[in-house]
Amino acid sequence: MVPLSGEKMSFFAIDRSAAEPLTRQIYAQLRSQVLSGILPSGSRVISTRRLAAELGVSRNIVLDAFDQLLAEGYLETRTGAGTFIAPGAAFHPGEMPDLSAVQTVGFRPFHTDLVDFRSGLPDLNSFPVRTWQRLSREVWDELTPLDLSYSQPEGRVELRSEIARYIAAYRGVRCHPDQVLVTGGTTQAVGIVSRLLLRGSRSTCILEDPITSDIQIIAAGFGGNILPIPVDGQGMRVEALPEEVRPGFIYVTPSHQFPLGVTMPIQRRVRLLKYAQARGAFIVEDDYDSEFRYDSPPISSIQGLDPQRVVYIGTFSKTVCPSLRIGYIVFPPELVNRGREVKWFTDLHNSSVDQLILARFIAEGHFVRHVHAMKKAHRAHRQALVDSLRAHFGNAAEVLGSPAGLHLCARFAGVRFTPGLLARIESAGAKVYPVEEHAIKKGRWRDTLILGYGMLGPQRMDEGISILRRCLAA
Amino acid sequence: MVPLSGEKMSFFAIDRSAAEPLTRQIYAQLRSQVLSGILPSGSRVISTRRLAAELGVSRNIVLDAFDQLLAEGYLETRTGAGTFIAPGAAFHPGEMPDLSAVQTVGFRPFHTDLVDFRSGLPDLNSFPVRTWQRLSREVWDELTPLDLSYSQPEGRVELRSEIARYIAAYRGVRCHPDQVLVTGGTTQAVGIVSRLLLRGSRSTCILEDPITSDIQIIAAGFGGNILPIPVDGQGMRVEALPEEVRPGFIYVTPSHQFPLGVTMPIQRRVRLLKYAQARGAFIVEDDYDSEFRYDSPPISSIQGLDPQRVVYIGTFSKTVCPSLRIGYIVFPPELVNRGREVKWFTDLHNSSVDQLILARFIAEGHFVRHVHAMKKAHRAHRQALVDSLRAHFGNAAEVLGSPAGLHLCARFAGVRFTPGLLARIESAGAKVYPVEEHAIKKGRWRDTLILGYGMLGPQRMDEGISILRRCLAA
Repeated sequence: MVPLSGEKMSFFAIDRSAAEPLTRQIYAQLRSQVLSGILPSGSRVISTRRLAAELGVSRNIVLDAFDQLLAEGYLETRTGAGTFIAPGAAFHPGEMPDLSAVQTVGFRPFHTDLVDFRSGLPDLNSFPVRTWQRLSREVWDELTPLDLSYSQPEGRVELRSEIARYIAAYRGVRCHPDQVLVTGGTTQAVGIVSRLLLRGSRSTCILEDPITSDIQIIAAGFGGNILPIPVDGQGMRVEALPEEVRPGFIYVTPSHQFPLGVTMPIQRRVRLLKYAQARGAFIVEDDYDSEFRYDSPPISSIQGLDPQRVVYIGTFSKTVCPSLRIGYIVFPPELVNRGREVKWFTDLHNSSVDQLILARFIAEGHFVRHVHAMKKAHRAHRQALVDSLRAHFGNAAEVLGSPAGLHLCARFAGVRFTPGLLARIESAGAKVYPVEEHAIKKGRWRDTLILGYGMLGPQRMDEGISILRRCLAA
Repeated sequence: MVPLSGEKMSFFAIDRSAAEPLTRQIYAQLRSQVLSGILPSGSRVISTRRLAAELGVSRNIVLDAFDQLLAEGYLETRTGAGTFIAPGAAFHPGEMPDLSAVQTVGFRPFHTDLVDFRSGLPDLNSFPVRTWQRLSREVWDELTPLDLSYSQPEGRVELRSEIARYIAAYRGVRCHPDQVLVTGGTTQAVGIVSRLLLRGSRSTCILEDPITSDIQIIAAGFGGNILPIPVDGQGMRVEALPEEVRPGFIYVTPSHQFPLGVTMPIQRRVRLLKYAQARGAFIVEDDYDSEFRYDSPPISSIQGLDPQRVVYIGTFSKTVCPSLRIGYIVFPPELVNRGREVKWFTDLHNSSVDQLILARFIAEGHFVRHVHAMKKAHRAHRQALVDSLRAHFGNAAEVLGSPAGLHLCARFAGVRFTPGLLARIESAGAKVYPVEEHAIKKGRWRDTLILGYGMLGPQRMDEGISILRRCLAA
């Protein structure tokens, strides 16, 4: 232990076995004593030569620590007089943080200890890890240093071209790659679209009711005044759209409504387009899981009917994996530049390497093959779930919507899925999710569940439905 | 060519050599003829059997196309009467897009055909590609299917722990890993902080002047009323902070001011903290390139002085690479949950695999080694630039700020970097960036350039400075 200052005594020691470099140890202790006021301002500091001798270290080590403290203003030198504690450097730090109130927000884990009917997850067990690893290695092998630099907000052209080609062939979307903006998934896409289109007198956004609660929160967070339009067996009840409103956008999930799962027929699509055209409003088409359609090829997009009027949102969360965080927006030409600007000031751009790997995954045909394989798996999962519902509930459970996507809705007439009932089901071993959570006008969907089947095999699902039956019977 | 409808004649053909499946070809042509009105609603469609025979394809191919058109509402079947074009399905699509106005927004490429003094880029030539590839392979080898699912907004605990350890040891930041939020770089971090802290009566944000123009735009975009405080040789002139204001936050780059490059001494830091404390305001500390300090170890953070009062922002764009798009925020405990909520509704979370690779890169010591190697390279680059400025300009160019970071500022007394002069320099072969671009109050920095040196070797820089001298002499 060495006295640090000639005027007031203060001590410290160094620890040669610690990982922290000696310079840093000396620096940290001196600094902490200045901050705490133990070494008061104006007091003279022991000379570097003497401190080095006392500690038995090389003088350079002490000099480095002192230089640092001088640079940061803790010490000052007076010519010919030595080194002093600088004025104004004492400060009493707060207590150590209390983190007892910290909690998880937004995210819901997939519970493997329960039969978890969480929706929106594809069968992640079949992800082609080896292929992805190979493509990743190839991309890194070919990368130039400038590929590691900042990049365009719209995303890498390699990926945008593959997206444009794919959605033209499989989704009937008509666009040039320059209309594509690569985003951090659908969530970011909804935020960008809300920022772009909800402004001034155009602050109304028309949403399907029910619709994913996240979308309601994001649109409202950007100042959107939400106008809900009920969904029936053919999607948004377009005839209920109010005449007098000039909305910023009308948000629809026409291929497979979330959560109800219904498909909007062409007549309503045309009527919706005419409504939007007459008001100079945009349609936002969220096409989140339309690749998975089990009774026919995927339904074509509304975008293909009028590329000037529709903002199309797609995602790789359901077809590749959610952890990748890549989705995209197809903008009408007039919105392209402003969309890029909003993305730039949101997070500049998506990870370049991830984009290049994904582009190659699509270009080499792995993507379409993987979607095809997952479709087969999901179709079987869905059938097993329908069979299980039939076996356990008969006509007491009605399956809503089209055979498509990663979830179905089931209506249990006369049942009310209260928080208490949901908790009982969970403690019996199954986790189910009520449609009511996603309803804007509350009270219409208390008897209906969203049942996701992407991650669950037939046996697990049957266990879950059997638990559900027992709980509803109790 | 086959007539499609019994009532009105309409033809199409299939192309067996095309990549598009035959079902899709039949579907697409029928659909397009319904949409365009060539096949009017109510008209009867040729039978699938006959169409198959006429086209010489299997009937299943035609049935699949018809099923799809039925599912989408283009066709309808009347029992016993056959298949008809459904009413309300005709629509006249818009013209093909005019993309002539589309342009790059925000992003500035690094020009290799010029001597480009763009700031903010580290030496990307030395990125350890092989190490990164190995870590990527290892992470993928160990990944479970649920790692591919959705994840927590705050980021993977593996990465947050490494960040907390690293910034404690090297930046004097005191925090628990739960206070760390992984972000899509500093841009997203600034957006999240602005969303969180600029609200209601707290809409004023105090910025250093000059400061990165992107930060001004982001804060203003979230409703911030910007109050600029000038920077002098010791950073923000804290004594000029107005008494009567209660700001949402005060944004500072105290370790290495951007763009001027100066360091804020401890006295000003303490005074700034007291100002913020007295007003219940937060300090946002942007620590973007403080790892690179060439005359002493990195300057400790303000956060370490008062973890309750400071929101600390760090980035891996300068220490790993910008294309990765990973940065982080360290929140005071009271802001942790709300910060996670904003991140969730921004883009849910960062790519999980990228986070895990980066966590391993830090945990295995590659990160600190890489930063150390880059620091040596950057120090040499900076010295070469200073030498070159001295050789070509002597006292006519004054180098501002501390020897740190990835750029320096140079003041050319009497020169005015007008758009015309900048264009002449560019056509002579060098690209330079004026500080004035980042000034909030215009007019004070017309004679000063930001010169980035991360990506440029000594010889290139000397070429660039020599071009600059010729252009200023002309």
